[in-house]
Amino acid sequence: MQRFSLDEISQMEQRYRAAFINSLSGFKSANLVGTQSAQGVHNLALVSSVFHLGASPALMGMIIRPHTVRRDTLENIMQTGFYTINHVNALMVAAAHQTSARYDANISEFDEVGLSPQLEADFPAPYVLESHIKIGLRLEQIQPIAINQTELLIGAVEQVIIDDETIIKADGYVDIEAVNSVAISSLDGYHSTQSHGRFHYAKANVKPSKLID
Amino acid sequence: MQRFSLDEISQMEQRYRAAFINSLSGFKSANLVGTQSAQGVHNLALVSSVFHLGASPALMGMIIRPHTVRRDTLENIMQTGFYTINHVNALMVAAAHQTSARYDANISEFDEVGLSPQLEADFPAPYVLESHIKIGLRLEQIQPIAINQTELLIGAVEQVIIDDETIIKADGYVDIEAVNSVAISSLDGYHSTQSHGRFHYAKANVKPSKLID
Repeated sequence: MQRFSLDEISQMEQRYRAAFINSLSGFKSANLVGTQSAQGVHNLALVSSVFHLGASPALMGMIIRPHTVRRDTLENIMQTGFYTINHVNALMVAAAHQTSARYDANISEFDEVGLSPQLEADFPAPYVLESHIKIGLRLEQIQPIAINQTELLIGAVEQVIIDDETIIKADGYVDIEAVNSVAISSLDGYHSTQSHGRFHYAKANVKPSKLID
Repeated sequence: MQRFSLDEISQMEQRYRAAFINSLSGFKSANLVGTQSAQGVHNLALVSSVFHLGASPALMGMIIRPHTVRRDTLENIMQTGFYTINHVNALMVAAAHQTSARYDANISEFDEVGLSPQLEADFPAPYVLESHIKIGLRLEQIQPIAINQTELLIGAVEQVIIDDETIIKADGYVDIEAVNSVAISSLDGYHSTQSHGRFHYAKANVKPSKLID
């Protein structure tokens, strides 16, 4: 067993600490964020910080560090007000990871990594054709996180595109494992999943049981 | 292929929409949050909304809905200023899920679901003995998310306990799959993972390659 105190964590070498601390929250979602600049250049960025914020209204959160490689994404979202979130699946892991390289603002990551923009007439940001679960969002607000100068982007879900409708179950659950969506660990680990089943809504006087195995 | 417009999403039945929208962000972390009331009662709650907020300083975020079953957790954190985050592993999925039942405030979920509080002399919140990755946090701030009346709790990492130090790699990466940490989909799906390897830091003029297979 190993314990780390606040002092020991503070004294870790910077990149070591980044890998270590990024591991601690557990598995992260793996999404590609698609945007378009005012000049019409498509941008695609791997983001592991997308999270569920609420179902009614349908909202998704995303943490952006303004002083990193993600700047094009943030600027495009602020200029156009729209972006897409596209699940990374097992077949696109290498291409998705490669979008995190520092490409110039006038270069489309779609072209560079070999993914295809999917343009919808009624939505002003590119989806990823190869992704099986795609969400179109309108920027609702940007909430600064003063403590570490990051930004919480809150997006309202405007459109959802699901390739294979059979993964949507009768109660609304979407079987994201069935389309090979992956999870991320730390900064650079990618993982497919294997289900333990779904559990019934928990009640205080009833033993836990599986809804679906 | 199925598309959903904003209107169609708004018209979904409430529980259906909750399951559907909760699926869209991708895989979520699976953590048990341990707290202690001013009266000394332990509380344990499954939370799928923990996310990485920053490595320097080391910060973790967590979204709490104040008007749900999580109220004890929020009140304890506000009263004591401390909480623990403990990875759910494959062996504790049923017990972890069961903590989401509505137990009275004077009842310890540890006792009810069969998990063991691990008390550390220097930390005022209980860890979960059966968990392999445990983080002790001090509440840094609560940031209201006005748009849907949720709260973003920001915690500073004060202490980390890792059972098996061999899962900490030379560069700081913690192999959370090796200790069977699980991921959550939607509201009630639990998943183990299978690694696709780790990738080198992406560079614009270099093809993506694996650091570890």
